[in-house]
Amino acid sequence: MNKRRLNVAMIGYGFMGRAHSNAFRQAGSFFDSPFELRLKTVCGRNRARLEEMASAWGWEEIATDWETVVSQPDIDIVDICTPNYLHAPIATAAAQAGKIVLCEKPLANSVEEAESMTAAARKVPTLVWFNYRRVPAVSLAKQLIARGRVGEVYHYRAVYLQSWGKDPRDPGAWRFDPVEAGSGVMGDLLSHSLDLATWLNGSVRRLCAQVHTFAEGRRVDDAVTVLVEFSNGSIGTFEASRFATGNLNRNAFEINGSLGALRFNLEEMNHLAFNDLGGDAAEQGWRRMLVTGPRHPYAEHFWPPGHVLGYEHTFICTLSDFLSALEKNERFHPDFADALEVQRLMKAVTESSTSRRWIDVSPSAVSVSQASGPI
Amino acid sequence: MNKRRLNVAMIGYGFMGRAHSNAFRQAGSFFDSPFELRLKTVCGRNRARLEEMASAWGWEEIATDWETVVSQPDIDIVDICTPNYLHAPIATAAAQAGKIVLCEKPLANSVEEAESMTAAARKVPTLVWFNYRRVPAVSLAKQLIARGRVGEVYHYRAVYLQSWGKDPRDPGAWRFDPVEAGSGVMGDLLSHSLDLATWLNGSVRRLCAQVHTFAEGRRVDDAVTVLVEFSNGSIGTFEASRFATGNLNRNAFEINGSLGALRFNLEEMNHLAFNDLGGDAAEQGWRRMLVTGPRHPYAEHFWPPGHVLGYEHTFICTLSDFLSALEKNERFHPDFADALEVQRLMKAVTESSTSRRWIDVSPSAVSVSQASGPI
Amino acid sequence: MNKRRLNVAMIGYGFMGRAHSNAFRQAGSFFDSPFELRLKTVCGRNRARLEEMASAWGWEEIATDWETVVSQPDIDIVDICTPNYLHAPIATAAAQAGKIVLCEKPLANSVEEAESMTAAARKVPTLVWFNYRRVPAVSLAKQLIARGRVGEVYHYRAVYLQSWGKDPRDPGAWRFDPVEAGSGVMGDLLSHSLDLATWLNGSVRRLCAQVHTFAEGRRVDDAVTVLVEFSNGSIGTFEASRFATGNLNRNAFEINGSLGALRFNLEEMNHLAFNDLGGDAAEQGWRRMLVTGPRHPYAEHFWPPGHVLGYEHTFICTLSDFLSALEKNERFHPDFADALEVQRLMKAVTESSTSRRWIDVSPSAVSVSQASGPI
Amino acid sequence: MNKRRLNVAMIGYGFMGRAHSNAFRQAGSFFDSPFELRLKTVCGRNRARLEEMASAWGWEEIATDWETVVSQPDIDIVDICTPNYLHAPIATAAAQAGKIVLCEKPLANSVEEAESMTAAARKVPTLVWFNYRRVPAVSLAKQLIARGRVGEVYHYRAVYLQSWGKDPRDPGAWRFDPVEAGSGVMGDLLSHSLDLATWLNGSVRRLCAQVHTFAEGRRVDDAVTVLVEFSNGSIGTFEASRFATGNLNRNAFEINGSLGALRFNLEEMNHLAFNDLGGDAAEQGWRRMLVTGPRHPYAEHFWPPGHVLGYEHTFICTLSDFLSALEKNERFHPDFADALEVQRLMKAVTESSTSRRWIDVSPSAVSVSQASGPI
Repeated sequence: MNKRRLNVAMIGYGFMGRAHSNAFRQAGSFFDSPFELRLKTVCGRNRARLEEMASAWGWEEIATDWETVVSQPDIDIVDICTPNYLHAPIATAAAQAGKIVLCEKPLANSVEEAESMTAAARKVPTLVWFNYRRVPAVSLAKQLIARGRVGEVYHYRAVYLQSWGKDPRDPGAWRFDPVEAGSGVMGDLLSHSLDLATWLNGSVRRLCAQVHTFAEGRRVDDAVTVLVEFSNGSIGTFEASRFATGNLNRNAFEINGSLGALRFNLEEMNHLAFNDLGGDAAEQGWRRMLVTGPRHPYAEHFWPPGHVLGYEHTFICTLSDFLSALEKNERFHPDFADALEVQRLMKAVTESSTSRRWIDVSPSAVSVSQASGPI
Repeated sequence: MNKRRLNVAMIGYGFMGRAHSNAFRQAGSFFDSPFELRLKTVCGRNRARLEEMASAWGWEEIATDWETVVSQPDIDIVDICTPNYLHAPIATAAAQAGKIVLCEKPLANSVEEAESMTAAARKVPTLVWFNYRRVPAVSLAKQLIARGRVGEVYHYRAVYLQSWGKDPRDPGAWRFDPVEAGSGVMGDLLSHSLDLATWLNGSVRRLCAQVHTFAEGRRVDDAVTVLVEFSNGSIGTFEASRFATGNLNRNAFEINGSLGALRFNLEEMNHLAFNDLGGDAAEQGWRRMLVTGPRHPYAEHFWPPGHVLGYEHTFICTLSDFLSALEKNERFHPDFADALEVQRLMKAVTESSTSRRWIDVSPSAVSVSQASGPI
Repeated sequence: MNKRRLNVAMIGYGFMGRAHSNAFRQAGSFFDSPFELRLKTVCGRNRARLEEMASAWGWEEIATDWETVVSQPDIDIVDICTPNYLHAPIATAAAQAGKIVLCEKPLANSVEEAESMTAAARKVPTLVWFNYRRVPAVSLAKQLIARGRVGEVYHYRAVYLQSWGKDPRDPGAWRFDPVEAGSGVMGDLLSHSLDLATWLNGSVRRLCAQVHTFAEGRRVDDAVTVLVEFSNGSIGTFEASRFATGNLNRNAFEINGSLGALRFNLEEMNHLAFNDLGGDAAEQGWRRMLVTGPRHPYAEHFWPPGHVLGYEHTFICTLSDFLSALEKNERFHPDFADALEVQRLMKAVTESSTSRRWIDVSPSAVSVSQASGPI
Repeated sequence: MNKRRLNVAMIGYGFMGRAHSNAFRQAGSFFDSPFELRLKTVCGRNRARLEEMASAWGWEEIATDWETVVSQPDIDIVDICTPNYLHAPIATAAAQAGKIVLCEKPLANSVEEAESMTAAARKVPTLVWFNYRRVPAVSLAKQLIARGRVGEVYHYRAVYLQSWGKDPRDPGAWRFDPVEAGSGVMGDLLSHSLDLATWLNGSVRRLCAQVHTFAEGRRVDDAVTVLVEFSNGSIGTFEASRFATGNLNRNAFEINGSLGALRFNLEEMNHLAFNDLGGDAAEQGWRRMLVTGPRHPYAEHFWPPGHVLGYEHTFICTLSDFLSALEKNERFHPDFADALEVQRLMKAVTESSTSRRWIDVSPSAVSVSQASGPI
């Protein structure tokens, strides 16, 4: 076919490296795209693991020096899934070399880094892998809100609860190093909740947070709880934890509005619960929708009704939407500027916990994230 | 108040004796009734247990000879909760003495007994304690069907699954004696499912059944499974078992219709699930309704929304509806004639299992149960 | 029987008046008690409604002057279910007259009132109707914690979400009057969550809260969210709201511990979910227990396994435990002193919200509530 | 790498063609395999759709004459996902040409065809795509049964309920043609349930069935219900329907045994519920396991705990297990012989429905399916 080819270089090869590789391979099978992605180079420090990655996922070449890779003329897209502290230098270099830049979340280890990256990348298309916006059930929540089915929002309640990543000796050990990771659950889990919240419910006006470390000697946060006031007048709570035993991946939210309410939980990611307050009061209840039907977001690209999707499809949908925006020359969300807003919220969380005070979140800054995306 | 007083005599004092006693005491507190029920006499064989019953529940007198009791002039209502084989003689004598007769299910140990009882009682008001019709969620199901929210029915699927009554040494041991109980799960559990099914979905045209006993040496059935064709063209399955481990009291049904579907499970008796096939296909799903709202059956008589009811309330609601019908001189459902139809279905189940054949259920007989009740 | 008779006077006759009346009538039927409760006097301002109450629930007399009633020599128990602002004067007078005093929650409209009441009642047995401790599933949670099945607690997460009591024109309108009610959801809903939390997880060390009113012109709180540090090192969040649309009575908590996790929701009050972290990791999961079995709290007093209880049974169980403690001359929990601790927490919540700061909760005060109850 | 290359030809390109293509592409990424699969030829009648398939999924060539394809020397594997009536001629020709043969279910349109195919293929490795054995949660069920966690089985209860494939004008219209499809839901849905049942619970001894068509003028079955006796003494019920409104893909089973019980539903395919009857009775309940942990089947090949899989992964796992068996020169299950047993059961279902009688299923025939597979 006469599709435009885009050569991809991926820096990093861990858990996210696999999820991204899969998306690069699969997007063109499930979605009709004007671009053909070529898995050109996978780059990292460990040559043996690079060989494995290349063999398993079809990367054509391996490389160990990212600085060379990001400036290679035949690379169109640089995808970053390294430990967090490397996001800034790699993204900046790639953007300066004019590449399309895709970056894992959280965008950076500080607001300063994130601002600098956003500035550096202001002329290239960017994507940050806040992949949960593209869970079909979450996209449906966004559509229902946009259609006015929820009405005025009173409450936004989010948790991201895990209990399996507690052992600092596991291969993702950099996640427990404050220098490499920047933070613990804050960047790893809370950032997802904050991105979804600002996307679904708008900007945050004020917050008060409590950051906690349970594991002795650990230098990053294991748990964080936050009280929030949103700009739309609703109030919220957030909690993220790696010590929420019994929960494996409970990235969940509930929204209570004047016309309807919504519930989502990533552990049951093919379902969205909706409580429509309209109609006959005798028939109201939590409606558990299996979001796999022909009228549901992304569903037509996959399987017939009732045939569920998994975690990895969120990356495929994200990438496909990005390529659509790229083709139309439109801004994609979430991009670096959107992720910078999440970074600002994380900074406010940290400041609030340290100072034991409520923190006003600058409204001017937040306004950027209000730009509406394609959905 | 100037309410008409009705003196009650209850024959039997086991599990059902407690449930009935409670209903007699409570109906007037939760429901406004023209009658005042007086718990006059509790009758049985064991004097010590009768004393306990009388003390705990406020029965004024005890008695050990039911024949005397049912003919006493100051008794208005005879309530029967003895082992099944005594239903026929007691109900017949009480009806012949002109009493109002309330009887536990199953009505009798055979169709012949049930016919004879129904004939004997044709001039007195009767009630059979198929109490699950008056679970508010089940009554709501009936209302939704009546309002046309389910449409043409395709499937009716019922189970009544327990696993705790397996020990024949327990006090309810008469339930395992074929002479005293008539049958095992068939009368104990399946009869409830059949009553609900004919109430909700109309008469049965044909059935094929498999009756099974797991416990060695037991002479009544432990499990029964049935295939059914209903007169309305829908097809059904039924299963009742005392060996359905993991289930304590799963009296459940699902109805699939052209316009909607319904699900109920007694273990979560305050909820009814409804899947409305109308409206926007993108918003369809199983709507789990907490049937405690002001627009729900019976709810106004109890507590505010969200304050759930328990098992015993089904008896209170049944009794209250019976007293309302009595006041208006209307026929109450389910009465002896309704329960006779269930008895005919149980007979067909037995015959089918014995002969390993499908059995046509006489349509003339069934037509009686089609009379519509107050709901 | 030769039971000791206790004459009860109940002041108030609203929603709680019905729930208490029911408990007074039913406790002796379901539980074997050394006391016989006599429903002597129901007292209030509206004679017509008093007549109705007396007729429906069997109160022997009505009265309109509580001051006379609480000092009558033939009254043994004074039960208070008036609007909150009357709790203090009635309880104080009753205690001074030597009566046993039962009082609806919240105990008072201020810590000062609560302290004064507790002091006045220090020589008489008291009970505060924090009835949710005696939901069988909640009592089972307490037992599991006591048996060490949860281990070291990391997180305690509670919500009490409603959406039906928003209309100030309804009969419970005093609940929206700051003078009569003291507060909005704080006293009505949050107090329940705080009582359960301190009972299940011990005292609170510090908290930070946000109190919010959505309804225009309303002078009490509609919603409150709280961050908490417990004395045992766990961290918590609380939320109570009358604007949590889609939720009718979601009084729920989740506890994450080193050995197990627990989940409860009052809307499904017969279930407790337990995630045991011991044993084979391949078999771990949320175990939804239908708390109606012979080994479960209170179950033997009611029905066979799988036959569920309702809201009102929590009052019956509370009263029965109180009468047991009374017989044994033991302190009952929760009593006035326990409820005073909840009052102190509510005060801290208010102060934190007003001052926008974290508030330390005095440890000496809290220690009282650490006394262990009969369970 | 020096992996052995296997060239694949796929005949057919519908819904199943996509699912198979995906598995061929993905197996080597998620699983370490000694084979490298090359997507060589996709074959069908419509050239335009073949071009699309080839482009989307990476097939190297297209072809329109299956007879040529199956005899090409450079083809190692022939995968059949045509309408059912073509399974027999293609599989037979491919087997006679010495190819490895993979075939969609049901294996054939009659027992005679299936026997002939099985005989023809007795010397080549075969696979039938009963993919639901490899849902990780179903594989875990099999493991728990094998470890004795369920004990003696009393009941096996299966449904496969859909409601979306009712329109005969949709592209899968051949499914409604009795000549092309052989049957309706029987081959499409019930065959899956029968395969799982015989795998999990052993052979069927006797059955009685009711086959029904709701849609006017349709010549295949829309619904089937079956009563079953298994050789192990347990009794069962089966139901499959395309008119089970409210259900999209409810392929579910429940097994009640003397030591434990299991529940599964494909609509929530990442969960398995287990009710362990051992241990403390007070702690028993349905344990909902999120089957994504390191100790769970297949989990290590995909994502961290709590990151769920989708429908398509069942094909990937099936293919990977097949390749493992191939490497070790072991028999794979389910193969043609296993699928032949399902075909015999479907024949018995048809005969029972036609004759309105119970049908004994020949034990000799069934014994073949008792061979134990790798799990």
